[in-house]
Amino acid sequence: MDIVSINEVGPRDGLQNIKNILSVDERLKLIRSLEEAGIKLIEIGSFVSHKAVPAMSDTDELISQLGNIENYSVLIPNEKGLDKAKNNGVKEICTVLCVTDSMNKKNINQTVKETLRDLKKIFLETKDSGIRSKCYVSVAFYCPYEGKVDSCYVEDVIGLLLDYKADEIVIADTIGAANPREVKKLLSSIINNYKDINMSCHFHDTRALGLANVYASLDAGIKKFDSCIGGLGGCPFAPNSSGNLATEDLVSMLEMMNITTGVNLDKLISSRELASEFTHMSLKGRMI
Amino acid sequence: MDIVSINEVGPRDGLQNIKNILSVDERLKLIRSLEEAGIKLIEIGSFVSHKAVPAMSDTDELISQLGNIENYSVLIPNEKGLDKAKNNGVKEICTVLCVTDSMNKKNINQTVKETLRDLKKIFLETKDSGIRSKCYVSVAFYCPYEGKVDSCYVEDVIGLLLDYKADEIVIADTIGAANPREVKKLLSSIINNYKDINMSCHFHDTRALGLANVYASLDAGIKKFDSCIGGLGGCPFAPNSSGNLATEDLVSMLEMMNITTGVNLDKLISSRELASEFTHMSLKGRMI
Repeated sequence: MDIVSINEVGPRDGLQNIKNILSVDERLKLIRSLEEAGIKLIEIGSFVSHKAVPAMSDTDELISQLGNIENYSVLIPNEKGLDKAKNNGVKEICTVLCVTDSMNKKNINQTVKETLRDLKKIFLETKDSGIRSKCYVSVAFYCPYEGKVDSCYVEDVIGLLLDYKADEIVIADTIGAANPREVKKLLSSIINNYKDINMSCHFHDTRALGLANVYASLDAGIKKFDSCIGGLGGCPFAPNSSGNLATEDLVSMLEMMNITTGVNLDKLISSRELASEFTHMSLKGRMI
Repeated sequence: MDIVSINEVGPRDGLQNIKNILSVDERLKLIRSLEEAGIKLIEIGSFVSHKAVPAMSDTDELISQLGNIENYSVLIPNEKGLDKAKNNGVKEICTVLCVTDSMNKKNINQTVKETLRDLKKIFLETKDSGIRSKCYVSVAFYCPYEGKVDSCYVEDVIGLLLDYKADEIVIADTIGAANPREVKKLLSSIINNYKDINMSCHFHDTRALGLANVYASLDAGIKKFDSCIGGLGGCPFAPNSSGNLATEDLVSMLEMMNITTGVNLDKLISSRELASEFTHMSLKGRMI
């Protein structure tokens, strides 16, 4: 049977930059609704500066209300974030490396080299603590400041992250500028060079190529995708990055292709309605 | 160099079912504007019943005003239409075969077998007259009345059309229901079974999979696509078929992939503005 895993990033990537900040109770209701629709993996929040990203405040309170922390991941920007994650019993953390210096500086005011040094420590610590670690390789195709990113360089950076024992690499087209041909080419090459890599993909639908890029990734052998209910989100520091690939679009296409997702599309639309209500936005995918 | 041909079907498929019928002068202006943008091949109209499809009236007058008839094609439903095409100096005709009886009956009140018999005669006559013949294999993936269409059967029908000497086969996802996986599978299989086939694709974007299906087709080896300025159109007899793949989306994606189309995107957007003005519709692709 053909199965694809979906990692819902709405509660973190979708909400982090939202105008109408959701309460912990609303975030909790949205997460429960997504679970009710059959979503198994959810990035529920982040331990970042409350001042910089107020929408992600009280992630500790959210975790405490969720009770069970299995199948949830939390984004952390640094070791301080990791400490908070550990203190809150988080089982999976997400880290971010923007592979260009310009973008990485905008994001966390570090060069790529500096972040790699920190990630090495973080992954050592997560291994010791039995926490699963993911690393977003952000702007993996195009950078809003530096343009087309050299794919050989991206592969070398991934090699380092694997040396540092990151458990999962998430290839992110942060500004939704990649085309399916280059997606297939990069992913196939990575899989060829790093045979045992555990890799998933994170697409933005800025230029309406999200679904084409998912198809290209499936063709390259990818079996896990990030997506975001209602296509919410986008990075606050990357111009024109608005709009993650909508979870309902991803599920629709996969189900049309007879690929099992375990997600009930009708219930997912109810989750979208809830997200629309809480964010005061009229959310809609491209397919449905 | 990687080159893809675009056959603009806006003046026929895009306008045939339009509420606000365009004058011959407006149709002429739209065609000239598309040519100015670099579009080389255009389906300019059809010789069908004026009563059934009033928007396609005066195609003979349009041809006479166009002067040169090279690079234009005209749709004909039967031998009577072929006579008109011949009388008007048409160099390329398009025929339509819906591969399910239910859909073919709705379209031209014939069974598939009856249409195949007529097409055999038509292609004999075009060969004798030095006219190039195309055949749309319509509802090639899904029929709105019969559901999923058996791909082996579609291939057998194509085999007959090739025996009858159709010069080009156009695989049409008339209701925009195909997914990229089955597109790649069917097209690869056809290319494998009919080595010398001259085949292009015609996608509708009903479920937002037009671009993904184009990518899947490119992957299978297809080098020519139909598309429609502003995503106009849809078959009047196929429920939910609204929205051809927009030419500006097709060109955008191909150019992003470094595939040469010869089309100037800025000028194409001007053509879309003209189409919006003439149709009184606010036309827009998904990408731009």
